[in-house]
Amino acid sequence: MSDHIRIVLVNTTHPGNIGGVARAMKNMGLSDLCLVSPKVFPHRDADARASGATDLLESAMVVDSLDEAIADCELVFGTSARERHIPWPLVDPRELAAIAAPLQGKAKVAILFGREDRGLTNEELQRCHHHVHIPAVDSFSSLNIAAAVQVITYELRMAALAEEPMNKPQWGTNWDIDLAEQRELELMFEHLERTLVKIDFLDPDNPRQLMPRLRRLLQRAVPDKIEVNVLRGILTAVERQLPPAPVKDDDDV
Amino acid sequence: MSDHIRIVLVNTTHPGNIGGVARAMKNMGLSDLCLVSPKVFPHRDADARASGATDLLESAMVVDSLDEAIADCELVFGTSARERHIPWPLVDPRELAAIAAPLQGKAKVAILFGREDRGLTNEELQRCHHHVHIPAVDSFSSLNIAAAVQVITYELRMAALAEEPMNKPQWGTNWDIDLAEQRELELMFEHLERTLVKIDFLDPDNPRQLMPRLRRLLQRAVPDKIEVNVLRGILTAVERQLPPAPVKDDDDV
Repeated sequence: MSDHIRIVLVNTTHPGNIGGVARAMKNMGLSDLCLVSPKVFPHRDADARASGATDLLESAMVVDSLDEAIADCELVFGTSARERHIPWPLVDPRELAAIAAPLQGKAKVAILFGREDRGLTNEELQRCHHHVHIPAVDSFSSLNIAAAVQVITYELRMAALAEEPMNKPQWGTNWDIDLAEQRELELMFEHLERTLVKIDFLDPDNPRQLMPRLRRLLQRAVPDKIEVNVLRGILTAVERQLPPAPVKDDDDV
Repeated sequence: MSDHIRIVLVNTTHPGNIGGVARAMKNMGLSDLCLVSPKVFPHRDADARASGATDLLESAMVVDSLDEAIADCELVFGTSARERHIPWPLVDPRELAAIAAPLQGKAKVAILFGREDRGLTNEELQRCHHHVHIPAVDSFSSLNIAAAVQVITYELRMAALAEEPMNKPQWGTNWDIDLAEQRELELMFEHLERTLVKIDFLDPDNPRQLMPRLRRLLQRAVPDKIEVNVLRGILTAVERQLPPAPVKDDDDV
């Protein structure tokens, strides 16, 4: 029912938690589990906590990098327990479900869960279109990772089961163009960064918050494929205007 | 905030699950935990899984019978994974929260969770005013007990928070930077269009849908003032890279 949802666990330390996640997912009708560099996996503790969901552990995709985990996803949510330096579009689990559930058959959605002790890094969070926060009490806000997956997958299932039509997001459903995949976005951001360096707008030695700000802006809009192509076309047109790079003397090498 | 809610665990087998329940409760702002004849308690596995919620384990009431656990409660819910012989008033976790959250200060509410392997007995379930069912998939419907407590306490917290104004950095409200005004956006789009013409990406005689597409993309993100300034800065940096415009002869006029 919700095969467009991928749960991505980044650098999980305790294999028991991976098992707990698999069980929570299977309870709620999900099956697409991806593990980015788990510390210990497979492991008997994972099997024990999975308690009948070992099929999800066996079919889990294990990859080395977050890039691989989300390359084919059009919409990426990152779980975040705390306020970040740059605020990011933030939803609660119910809002996440209202956005993601109707994308069944239309877009692949990844939901990222970070390390047990310190969550996702800022760089990982900046790869996300939206952040999702489970509204725990401020003084004790860190949920067990399997518990966090349980809450979010529960909301996805409630949304999928709801008979009344959900509020449609403005993109993704009834949109004219397919949404861009994450790898297309990454190539665009790399192209953008290169070009900004060439036009002396971005100083590689002092990048400040420029790329995060541009990522946040563009990802907030969840670009479609044509929009990404247009943006890359503009960057190429800018590059064509630039004077040729000076040929370096051998002495400079 | 929800001190009228008591979580009651009946004959729990694994102390780790008791710890997981304590953590879930504390995450969601609950503190009243009652254990009916736990098999092993206290235990280091409970402390480990509680992960900072050991205060709830220390203050937990341990009793011999369900009677003692719920004697002072006005409303009792029992969690049930499956249909029972005699249908009982059945709610989902959201409906439970809608009933129970407003009783703060008015009534004491107990929510019962049964054994890991077979839940609550029929006799125990018949002590309840309502049953609550978490809508798992039929073929794999048994949640871990800490996961079940997490879902239900999450719904209680969502219901409790619904009465408070949200405090989220959605863009537009509580964002770090003021949103751009429409006139600032228009100046940016004019600047963008001029620059695209200069770099030969936009043909003024055949503009097609380029500017509408770029408007749609950027306006969808609802840019803030700094983002608009960054974009205009990039356009200015591009313009600085361009060769000077040719001086027109009078003959051309």
